[in-house]
Amino acid sequence: MRAASGPDEVRRTNLGSLLQYVHLHGATSRAELTTRLGLNRSTIGALTAELTSAGLVSEAVPRDTGRAGRPSLVVRPESARVHAYALSIEVDRLRAARVGLGGRILDRRETDRPRGMALLDTVPPLACLVGEMRRAVAVGTRTVGTGVAVVDRARQADGTVRLAPTIGAGEEPVGAALGAALGEPGRLTVGNHADVSALVEHSRGVAVGCANVVYLHGDIGVGAGIIAGGRRVAGHRGYGGEVGHMVVNPDGRECWCGSRGCWETEIGEHALLRHAGRAGESGREAVLGVVNAAMRGDRRARSAVREVGAWIGFGVGNLANIFNPEAVIFGGTLRDVYLVAAAPIRSRLNAVALPAAREHLRMRTPELGDDAALLGAAELAFAHLLDDPLLG
Amino acid sequence: MRAASGPDEVRRTNLGSLLQYVHLHGATSRAELTTRLGLNRSTIGALTAELTSAGLVSEAVPRDTGRAGRPSLVVRPESARVHAYALSIEVDRLRAARVGLGGRILDRRETDRPRGMALLDTVPPLACLVGEMRRAVAVGTRTVGTGVAVVDRARQADGTVRLAPTIGAGEEPVGAALGAALGEPGRLTVGNHADVSALVEHSRGVAVGCANVVYLHGDIGVGAGIIAGGRRVAGHRGYGGEVGHMVVNPDGRECWCGSRGCWETEIGEHALLRHAGRAGESGREAVLGVVNAAMRGDRRARSAVREVGAWIGFGVGNLANIFNPEAVIFGGTLRDVYLVAAAPIRSRLNAVALPAAREHLRMRTPELGDDAALLGAAELAFAHLLDDPLLG
Repeated sequence: MRAASGPDEVRRTNLGSLLQYVHLHGATSRAELTTRLGLNRSTIGALTAELTSAGLVSEAVPRDTGRAGRPSLVVRPESARVHAYALSIEVDRLRAARVGLGGRILDRRETDRPRGMALLDTVPPLACLVGEMRRAVAVGTRTVGTGVAVVDRARQADGTVRLAPTIGAGEEPVGAALGAALGEPGRLTVGNHADVSALVEHSRGVAVGCANVVYLHGDIGVGAGIIAGGRRVAGHRGYGGEVGHMVVNPDGRECWCGSRGCWETEIGEHALLRHAGRAGESGREAVLGVVNAAMRGDRRARSAVREVGAWIGFGVGNLANIFNPEAVIFGGTLRDVYLVAAAPIRSRLNAVALPAAREHLRMRTPELGDDAALLGAAELAFAHLLDDPLLG
Repeated sequence: MRAASGPDEVRRTNLGSLLQYVHLHGATSRAELTTRLGLNRSTIGALTAELTSAGLVSEAVPRDTGRAGRPSLVVRPESARVHAYALSIEVDRLRAARVGLGGRILDRRETDRPRGMALLDTVPPLACLVGEMRRAVAVGTRTVGTGVAVVDRARQADGTVRLAPTIGAGEEPVGAALGAALGEPGRLTVGNHADVSALVEHSRGVAVGCANVVYLHGDIGVGAGIIAGGRRVAGHRGYGGEVGHMVVNPDGRECWCGSRGCWETEIGEHALLRHAGRAGESGREAVLGVVNAAMRGDRRARSAVREVGAWIGFGVGNLANIFNPEAVIFGGTLRDVYLVAAAPIRSRLNAVALPAAREHLRMRTPELGDDAALLGAAELAFAHLLDDPLLG
């Protein structure tokens, strides 16, 4: 237990709050900052001056306020001068972006990841994507760090990652390998795909203002980023959110994890393709193939979507009883399935969840779409800067 | 987003931190407070003086420190002069206590609650218990408020409670009714039994130092108090933690809630008694009867305990995958079952939970035993005082 302390700490906290505000909300007048942060005008002026001389924000006279009198200066984040690199390691592809302060994607690259490519083998192609972007960067810009989103479960503390198929067995030092390949060890943070997507949908997407959110990411497996009371549920060692291994069907199929009837055996990519009679196919295109066939009225595809939708609703119902969330967001291929299966999902959800737990629950798709993982990864890198803007 | 602010707020925060510290840790020397709170000696002296003149703490020279030099004054909470009333509304009984600042139970009363007694009908007997205790209180003491723990799900904001058997239907204004009966409306806070037990085991019981805790309370039904990252998981409207209605067995029995195969249909009191061939019995004594018979080697009782234990492990495994907790605490009758069923619980838990999610998981019984609910209810009342010691 630490007590509150002196003026220097207060100033640093205030600098972080102001920078965080314009990072999330974009250009904001000094007058509005005064109101939003509960600080007086001279303090806002002093803080802005400090952040300006650190090259983190700039100030300008607004073009036309439509009001009489001297207009309040507008403070905006230096998106073009301060940026982070964001990497997303997914099942079928590798993505990289350069993201400016304020959450603007300034550059992006993408390459395929062949199924079966080992996690550590993704390091060279990712480093290559970052190298390309670096060469395109103008002189005089500043990189605050690199954030990495992996669909496997990451331990943020040291960037080791437990692979989905070996989550019990080994830990892969992806953070260290990427840091070495990029030449910036110690400035790289690794997080889980669903976790960072949840946080960024919460801070600047569809779940703004929702303190209790379950973000589900689906591909071969299923994971969740869970926000309770405005904060991420990480767990003791960072391995929380493995909702794909909540057992929903004790008589179900064996899961690769050694258990039986895990949620992802009923709602993952394999389950949908199996029900649709397309067990030989795989990947996001194959999932979209079933979804599109269902929309066209194909009977087998419709039945597959209904079956998987019912199991999605079942698990969401359980999570509703446990978390009483305000919003459940369907990401990855679950987004596509949700768009054609909202009815069976809601129907089973209503049967499983207590009325009190579900009566204000909204189901949503990600507002930031596929960019959520990249923007969320960038937030991992920006976090250090926002925490203490004058450090480093 | 609010920024940090001026000296008055800092002082109030520090007063709260100091009072909270001695409330949780008991008598503490000024020297240790200086270290623990990260404040200098003169600040600690000033804060202590303010709290002393408010009648919340007292200072004394320690008897014998065993060291040379002037001993540091010891600050202790005024347990005998400042107290809260704590009520616990349970399935089979009603309990009340007077709890001194610092978490000392100064007086306690208890009466039976016949099964089927409506929640609002518990108000007169509870008011009666409080009345008895009030008459025994010495002159010059101060009551900071009343906290109420209910096994049903409470909404803390206004003290309405959703009854377990009608959780979807109505809300019972228990808080308002008790407030009126006690003549102290507005000074009464209602919380869920498992929630307040979780918090107090976390702050002064078996889970001190654990930031991720699942506290399970069992009787007829099953509920959880969940702490993630050091904070309670409440949910959007306060209805989180209904783990008893996580469906674990889609082919299982109908639950009163309308769903089927809810966790509490497999691990609640009825399930254990049914498996033991004692379906006609009910209540905690009946559960203890089965547990004791199992310990004596009774075959049917042992089989019942194994069966229920396996389902307990199943659900705990799911919760481990979702929360990656450091500790799971078994309260209520689940404590008694856990003590004879630890092996089947752990065995099924290991099959369901991912190694990463369970490898540091400890299973525990409540250190504060049955007092957890009363001490936790008292904390609801103390919270206002600790938040701002000089208010009211």
